[in-house]
Amino acid sequence: MEELESFDRINVPALDEVLGKKFNVLDDGFVRVVDYMGGDESIVQAARVSYGKGTKKVSEDRGLIRYLLRNHHTTPFEMCEIKFHVRVPMDAWRQWIRHRTANVNEYSTRYSIAIDASQKTNPDEWRLQAKDNKQGSAGFFDAETGSKFSKREEDLQNFAREIYRERLESGVAREQARKDLPLSTYTEAYWKIDLHNLLHFLYLRMDAHAQYEIRSYANVIGNEIVNRWCPFAWEAFKDYIINAKSYSALEMEVLMKIINGNAAEAVKTAGSFGWLNHTEKGLSKNRERIEFEAKLAQLGLSKPW
Amino acid sequence: MEELESFDRINVPALDEVLGKKFNVLDDGFVRVVDYMGGDESIVQAARVSYGKGTKKVSEDRGLIRYLLRNHHTTPFEMCEIKFHVRVPMDAWRQWIRHRTANVNEYSTRYSIAIDASQKTNPDEWRLQAKDNKQGSAGFFDAETGSKFSKREEDLQNFAREIYRERLESGVAREQARKDLPLSTYTEAYWKIDLHNLLHFLYLRMDAHAQYEIRSYANVIGNEIVNRWCPFAWEAFKDYIINAKSYSALEMEVLMKIINGNAAEAVKTAGSFGWLNHTEKGLSKNRERIEFEAKLAQLGLSKPW
Amino acid sequence: MEELESFDRINVPALDEVLGKKFNVLDDGFVRVVDYMGGDESIVQAARVSYGKGTKKVSEDRGLIRYLLRNHHTTPFEMCEIKFHVRVPMDAWRQWIRHRTANVNEYSTRYSIAIDASQKTNPDEWRLQAKDNKQGSAGFFDAETGSKFSKREEDLQNFAREIYRERLESGVAREQARKDLPLSTYTEAYWKIDLHNLLHFLYLRMDAHAQYEIRSYANVIGNEIVNRWCPFAWEAFKDYIINAKSYSALEMEVLMKIINGNAAEAVKTAGSFGWLNHTEKGLSKNRERIEFEAKLAQLGLSKPW
Amino acid sequence: MEELESFDRINVPALDEVLGKKFNVLDDGFVRVVDYMGGDESIVQAARVSYGKGTKKVSEDRGLIRYLLRNHHTTPFEMCEIKFHVRVPMDAWRQWIRHRTANVNEYSTRYSIAIDASQKTNPDEWRLQAKDNKQGSAGFFDAETGSKFSKREEDLQNFAREIYRERLESGVAREQARKDLPLSTYTEAYWKIDLHNLLHFLYLRMDAHAQYEIRSYANVIGNEIVNRWCPFAWEAFKDYIINAKSYSALEMEVLMKIINGNAAEAVKTAGSFGWLNHTEKGLSKNRERIEFEAKLAQLGLSKPW
Repeated sequence: MEELESFDRINVPALDEVLGKKFNVLDDGFVRVVDYMGGDESIVQAARVSYGKGTKKVSEDRGLIRYLLRNHHTTPFEMCEIKFHVRVPMDAWRQWIRHRTANVNEYSTRYSIAIDASQKTNPDEWRLQAKDNKQGSAGFFDAETGSKFSKREEDLQNFAREIYRERLESGVAREQARKDLPLSTYTEAYWKIDLHNLLHFLYLRMDAHAQYEIRSYANVIGNEIVNRWCPFAWEAFKDYIINAKSYSALEMEVLMKIINGNAAEAVKTAGSFGWLNHTEKGLSKNRERIEFEAKLAQLGLSKPW
Repeated sequence: MEELESFDRINVPALDEVLGKKFNVLDDGFVRVVDYMGGDESIVQAARVSYGKGTKKVSEDRGLIRYLLRNHHTTPFEMCEIKFHVRVPMDAWRQWIRHRTANVNEYSTRYSIAIDASQKTNPDEWRLQAKDNKQGSAGFFDAETGSKFSKREEDLQNFAREIYRERLESGVAREQARKDLPLSTYTEAYWKIDLHNLLHFLYLRMDAHAQYEIRSYANVIGNEIVNRWCPFAWEAFKDYIINAKSYSALEMEVLMKIINGNAAEAVKTAGSFGWLNHTEKGLSKNRERIEFEAKLAQLGLSKPW
Repeated sequence: MEELESFDRINVPALDEVLGKKFNVLDDGFVRVVDYMGGDESIVQAARVSYGKGTKKVSEDRGLIRYLLRNHHTTPFEMCEIKFHVRVPMDAWRQWIRHRTANVNEYSTRYSIAIDASQKTNPDEWRLQAKDNKQGSAGFFDAETGSKFSKREEDLQNFAREIYRERLESGVAREQARKDLPLSTYTEAYWKIDLHNLLHFLYLRMDAHAQYEIRSYANVIGNEIVNRWCPFAWEAFKDYIINAKSYSALEMEVLMKIINGNAAEAVKTAGSFGWLNHTEKGLSKNRERIEFEAKLAQLGLSKPW
Repeated sequence: MEELESFDRINVPALDEVLGKKFNVLDDGFVRVVDYMGGDESIVQAARVSYGKGTKKVSEDRGLIRYLLRNHHTTPFEMCEIKFHVRVPMDAWRQWIRHRTANVNEYSTRYSIAIDASQKTNPDEWRLQAKDNKQGSAGFFDAETGSKFSKREEDLQNFAREIYRERLESGVAREQARKDLPLSTYTEAYWKIDLHNLLHFLYLRMDAHAQYEIRSYANVIGNEIVNRWCPFAWEAFKDYIINAKSYSALEMEVLMKIINGNAAEAVKTAGSFGWLNHTEKGLSKNRERIEFEAKLAQLGLSKPW
């Protein structure tokens, strides 16, 4: 294996510039970078350990990183590590903490008095339940209705905080006094993760189906921080993961027939997949067909049924 | 490697008897076993793969399991897997979920309406903040004071639920409507874990310093479930982990001198560790010394300083 | 949450039929199922915990499993667990063990005498180094040349075993005596993993670029075992992962232009990605372009440059 | 939470001094630090996030780190990360890689020609099989016998390398040509791990029962590297883990009686544990009793039976 010429720690000046800087999220949350190890350079360095001598000339860094990412050679991306200090409502933190391959130290409300801040919802931020997605929201309430919700929220958050203080002042144990704090209460944590697992977190949480609150954090981490830290990896991630399109084996079969002008064959094949069952009111609802139709539209193609 | 004679799945009749049975915890929580794989028998089976042929006669199962556990041969314990259905207040679940080596499917309050139950604190259950332990509780309030706390809690929980219903009925998205629910709201989950990691969970959560709520769950899982599932492993765990005592290198040095009657030497050594610094009011507070004194007392020995 | 009506352990009769049966792999290896927990049914059960009451009618099992898999809802797949007994050459095991989210007990050559078997290569099994893939093979040697390699291999394996025996008979410690055994020596292990992580293993190791030896094991595990254990999950995995096609953001841009008949625009866009740099000998080698051309061909489309 | 005053990356000058320096291990192996994140300071920083404001004065760093370590507050130790470049015989690497909570990029012998070095055993390094420990060694062969073993080893390693070269020169695929290389062949890797998991690795691999080869690496990592990187954590680890003594519940019961002069009671209790079964030849072999006797001797106490 080729001798490394230098063993200074890898520095990424573009990230150093924002070290410690708070990127604000929601009404009172933030994300900031506390420390990091490695960068694009260490992805390349790790890949080249696998390849041994003499490969430096073959691929330049950007190309190599793109090659690794699209071929699922994920281990070199694990060689980069980053540590954040985050301030997040507990409700969003409940989702965040489900990502297990990370190191966490959270502010303890057993040991200390809970952070005196709850996420407040402005009148124009109240979201309507989505009709077609049981776990989503779609559109906003008008400001007038929103004002009523916001007022009621304020009352509830104030009452909860009043009771919390009452308990503490009376000597109730902190670990018990906190039990009725609202999920909107802010918590803080150090959160440390490697780049491979961070990108997976971002893939799931920057997705349009992720809840607005955690998505806001993910967007900041991705666009403001990873973008500075590992620009080649970030670009490759956007090209090959975030903005890529996947076609299932079934979709490929039908798509090829459509592209090659065999509409009748395409319909027959789709039918054999159970996509085209009819009811009195027309085609019955079939998720797989509906998703495929959206992909066809995106390609500028019409559905042949 | 020796041929296994039979390949039926391993069954543990004592656990089968309680499969699906709800063990109640707190006012409205429970734990129950949904499925499992393996038992004491599979720990032994796995250990014997490592040892190859002909070891069956050497050790009998109980002795082998005890040997493995006290010598940190942990991998055979990973060969047992268990799946629970649990109902837990979110506040305790926040601690629970920090154990990362487990598989989890939690009830979704984005998709469904939150479980209509919050952990209620009875008048005699309000705990005082511990004086000597910043993250603990010690003793209870009298029933009269407790009644006031309980009444106030009821008001808060009712108000929070009222607002939650109001939002849902007005069409606020479930994912947002839930944001001010109290941490005392119950959640449910499937929780699947291997025996090695479960024992580690129990070690930390059955500990006297663990919060009462999660400790209650841990005690049920340990005493009612693991006890039936893997009785040899459970016994060994109690003997070698839960009820074992550890002496640091420093403690051993002082202890040996005390046991051998060299009180003066013991004092000198303890002094060299910085355990015996004096202030005007006597010995200054030193955690390591205080913990050692407790261990001495437990052994029926007096401190020599 | 809906009450489960029954709490018998989940059984999969199709898998029970092959419990303990050795599926032979390579010249002297095998895979067999020792125990398992769950099946398609428990994926559905876990998903429905997340969704709460009343969803049973909405989706039938197959549809739900397909939905979960294509939308990256991976946690329900973690609720299935399987334990294998495998016999594998150490060289393939070195790759296998890189999958970290599994439980392992391997045969110990510190404790026991190494298994007296090495993977032998038949005369017609010697593979040529691939020209276009530094880490692959392509085609076979003729039998005559292969015979020479096989004879030399036999000599080496015999010599290594002779020296190993010599050392053991002279009293060399087993842990040291083994140090020069060839990587082709067989080892055995119990290997336990959840379905989600097993599918990821299969995705990487059934791939045409995986080494023949480990691919042989992966194919048996997938086609013979998972296929029986969780047929819906297996089908979905093949449709959405194994046989799916992914198009990068760049590929989508060019593809849409080609499909819509804008060849000139497609060429321009490809050029802006650096795919069409010219040298004296024509287009310079560009991996991303070459991969895209293969995808075009698969769709029955011609490249516009 | 208290504002951090400064956000420069944490540097540890004592470790910087040896960054990139090869610490030699065995005849041709090494360990060196490539990069790191954090140090004692970041353990303290992470712990204080949990504790919130105002704790800085309460504990000084060394005391806090010792407190965390002996009370199993392990998460702050996960906030330190280190990346090594190692060169290790594959036989030892097989043990090393069993530690799953680490990131790894290993030199690929599919892609590149295997490193041309095998671990050689000097005449005075051949170890005898331990009599009382099936998986250990005890003592050495005399140099004359050792010379014969070393000569034979050389022949075998040369023969294996000759055949490897023969295959490569004939065009056999690298991935197949390597299949009969001896386990003594050196490999290289980048190995990245957090401090908590590294200490666990060291606990198991610095142990007297660990195999000499991997123990040699562990000793270097611990004494030469962690010692410089996180001196307080390292000291605490030695005091509370490496050099601590643990007494099982059973041992504590008997020990207390012995210390308090109740020899007869101690014997009775030990008997009730099954430690004192007699055969014609005296006390039958009982591992738990034998281990306890060794602990008594260490305390300067005689066994009462």
